Amino acid sequence: MTSIGCVCMAKGTMKTICLTSLGKHDIKSFINSFDTILTDCDGVLWLGSELIPGANIALNTFRNLGKKIFYVTNNSTKSREEYIDKFRKLGFVASEEEILSSSYLSARYLNDIGFKKKVYVFGTSGITKELDKVGIHHTEVGPDPMVCDMGTLVSSKTKLDPEIGAVIVGFDEQISYPKILKAGSYLKNPDCLFLATNTDQQFPSKSNIVIPGAGCIVAAVECCAGRKPKVIGKPGDYIRDYLIKKHNINPQRTLMIGDRGNTDILLGTRCGFKTLMVLTGVSSLVDIEQWEKSDDKEILGCVPNYYVNTLADVVPLLPK
Amino acid sequence: MTSIGCVCMAKGTMKTICLTSLGKHDIKSFINSFDTILTDCDGVLWLGSELIPGANIALNTFRNLGKKIFYVTNNSTKSREEYIDKFRKLGFVASEEEILSSSYLSARYLNDIGFKKKVYVFGTSGITKELDKVGIHHTEVGPDPMVCDMGTLVSSKTKLDPEIGAVIVGFDEQISYPKILKAGSYLKNPDCLFLATNTDQQFPSKSNIVIPGAGCIVAAVECCAGRKPKVIGKPGDYIRDYLIKKHNINPQRTLMIGDRGNTDILLGTRCGFKTLMVLTGVSSLVDIEQWEKSDDKEILGCVPNYYVNTLADVVPLLPK
Repeated sequence: MTSIGCVCMAKGTMKTICLTSLGKHDIKSFINSFDTILTDCDGVLWLGSELIPGANIALNTFRNLGKKIFYVTNNSTKSREEYIDKFRKLGFVASEEEILSSSYLSARYLNDIGFKKKVYVFGTSGITKELDKVGIHHTEVGPDPMVCDMGTLVSSKTKLDPEIGAVIVGFDEQISYPKILKAGSYLKNPDCLFLATNTDQQFPSKSNIVIPGAGCIVAAVECCAGRKPKVIGKPGDYIRDYLIKKHNINPQRTLMIGDRGNTDILLGTRCGFKTLMVLTGVSSLVDIEQWEKSDDKEILGCVPNYYVNTLADVVPLLPK
Repeated sequence: MTSIGCVCMAKGTMKTICLTSLGKHDIKSFINSFDTILTDCDGVLWLGSELIPGANIALNTFRNLGKKIFYVTNNSTKSREEYIDKFRKLGFVASEEEILSSSYLSARYLNDIGFKKKVYVFGTSGITKELDKVGIHHTEVGPDPMVCDMGTLVSSKTKLDPEIGAVIVGFDEQISYPKILKAGSYLKNPDCLFLATNTDQQFPSKSNIVIPGAGCIVAAVECCAGRKPKVIGKPGDYIRDYLIKKHNINPQRTLMIGDRGNTDILLGTRCGFKTLMVLTGVSSLVDIEQWEKSDDKEILGCVPNYYVNTLADVVPLLPK
């Protein structure tokens, strides 16, 4: 079966296969080759608060076919409990344990390593709620604006809490100079852990406005601290270890669906999953063509095995 | 003449020469080999608002010996006019044309290339005052806090000014999410120029507080925009071109004094100046030893020809 409208027709030289160009038999083999399907959210299932039409039907169909589903999102602004509401509102089936948000995974990571100190959170309540659930102390989130001059901030106003043993940086629309200063100062101690929920540069956007992602906040702190963080979200390897350890998944029988090369697809490549890119978010076919030409292993790792315009296009191909 | 207290005694293997360990004759040759002396300010002449004792005497002595002096500072928070006050208050002789601040040089650069559009300034009045002097239009500086939710910010509150043709990023203690979003959005247009006054990661600090520098702001914008800026300040090459073109300096008869390897000294190395590091600021002898071991050309370029504990130590060595 060949989809006439499929963009792949014009891109004959690409190694990435257009999923809708496969014949019925190949589609069936493709679907049967997976027990587990991981999917990104922003740009695949929804854009901001709007459903990407048909994405819910596709995911629910995968589930009905007996696939184990995990929603893997780098967005740290919500706790898993809060995500459940969003999933249900947009017509997805989801349980807490299927939601692997970078906020949850960050708390999980600290819990796994037996962290007992306090966390300086440069982020939002999505992170602190997950820390609360595993009983890890943390600073409060919210605005911390620059209200004095720099001299005062440095000399007397900034008190560092000696209990802090980790800094978690995530998305924080209340980024401020005092927060960068505090994060950088805690990280001066080489024993202080430095975690980033994720390093996405931008959120998917349909307008001419570029919407800065957590990566911009992380970049500021990284520069100030002169250190690189452990990235908990995609494409960091903690997710793979977590999925294998807690859910006993078989990487070779796992599909990763995403809209972004350097997070979703790179994670899949690194973990030995098959990868499927949708074109409803950040990355495009032009990007894939560029990455294919690279000599850089990391950039080559952004090239997906398959692509499809939108998840909705997959639905008619699936076995009934 | 050997200074007994000189740290160099313990660092016998370093290639960088301790200036105070030179004999009288070598010191005289050293001084006579320069017509022009460039010096950094923060960490060499002062720390914040406090004079580094003796730095003024050293600079004034160089001047009395007939050296042409330029103060080269990456700090963009003041205009040249404002710097004059600071120099005089701390006992330095200085005229406007001797002060090469990154704020002044940024305005100068745009003027040199005949820039006629408007500048989005992510920085302070140090930059806008210098833009005013060369008649370049710009946005206003000051707080631009996150006062609505992200959806509103993206959908309706952010109006991009079609006149903007350049973004200048400098130090801005009022860093905010809306500012990063606007800078990133303007820079989506590949014709929009992207200038950074400087990329210093931190200010020199004597306390346990790490004071974020302009580099942290630039890193956030760079991440959001997915582009690298032209760096106007040290170690960018615009300064060299400016000094040769406007002041006809001879790089081979020029000394660059600084406290930081990756700005001051790297600039000197790139420009063919001789370099002298003082240990009153950011970098240390341990840093120099590390850099000397590197294979990276840029890191090797941070290694100074000479070092001295403090500029005050140079004074007794100078010819009367």
